[in-house]
Amino acid sequence: MPKLDLDAIPATNATGYPAPFSDAVAGRWYRRLAPAAGLRDFGASHVTLKPGAWSSQRHWHEDEDEDELVVMLAGEAVLVDDGGETPLRAGDVAVFPKGDGNGHCLRNDGDADCLFLAIGQPTTRVCHYPDVDMHLPEGGGYRHKDGRPY
Amino acid sequence: MPKLDLDAIPATNATGYPAPFSDAVAGRWYRRLAPAAGLRDFGASHVTLKPGAWSSQRHWHEDEDEDELVVMLAGEAVLVDDGGETPLRAGDVAVFPKGDGNGHCLRNDGDADCLFLAIGQPTTRVCHYPDVDMHLPEGGGYRHKDGRPY
Repeated sequence: MPKLDLDAIPATNATGYPAPFSDAVAGRWYRRLAPAAGLRDFGASHVTLKPGAWSSQRHWHEDEDEDELVVMLAGEAVLVDDGGETPLRAGDVAVFPKGDGNGHCLRNDGDADCLFLAIGQPTTRVCHYPDVDMHLPEGGGYRHKDGRPY
Repeated sequence: MPKLDLDAIPATNATGYPAPFSDAVAGRWYRRLAPAAGLRDFGASHVTLKPGAWSSQRHWHEDEDEDELVVMLAGEAVLVDDGGETPLRAGDVAVFPKGDGNGHCLRNDGDADCLFLAIGQPTTRVCHYPDVDMHLPEGGGYRHKDGRPY
């Protein structure tokens, strides 16, 4: 049955971020659709941001990783990137080509949940975080920017 | 600017389908987002189905092609597949893993436009159409099922 029963797919707010950077995403609840649906070519996450939650720390992926696309389904979020802050509402689409060096995240500044769908590989190889002392190197495992592990 | 200005991306109702199979998709207007946005890892189309329009002839892709995902943004469509007919409304997600052999399409049976986003490669290698005398072979070029070109 191609239509997904989203409620039947477990939601989690798990994160690999070390403290204190994990606090921002504690209210990010997501369902990984690709394993549930048998998709292999791209990942897809159905995400609920509770009020105050962020989609991630602001980040960008290297050219060997995968492009990202976000489509807003309900509520409102603020897209934060190098260009500033942009509201996103239901039906809006934002894209983040790999290697563009433009750190981005979505932030729920409102008092209601917002929902979006994110397309792209869930596991990335190298990720840069311009705002915080965190880096994801080749092979995984978050580190300080000077290379020390958390 | 990661947020796309959808209205600035030209919409087309072009199709490679031969007549009479092209009639069903004459009211399908789509914007290819990947070339406009610099995405390379997957295609993305923002589609408006006018009343009576179909997203495609019912079809499925071989295992060498790419998975597909559809998320409804506004209005209502009917998902037609081997399992029958299923209504899709804003926020619903449907997935079509490559190689599953389950022919599918979306049909707008209502009297208002519906909008959806489709993820997956726009150019496929081999495509099967269970309901009509049409086949897309390796290398492209629609043919009758007995191999004659249109």
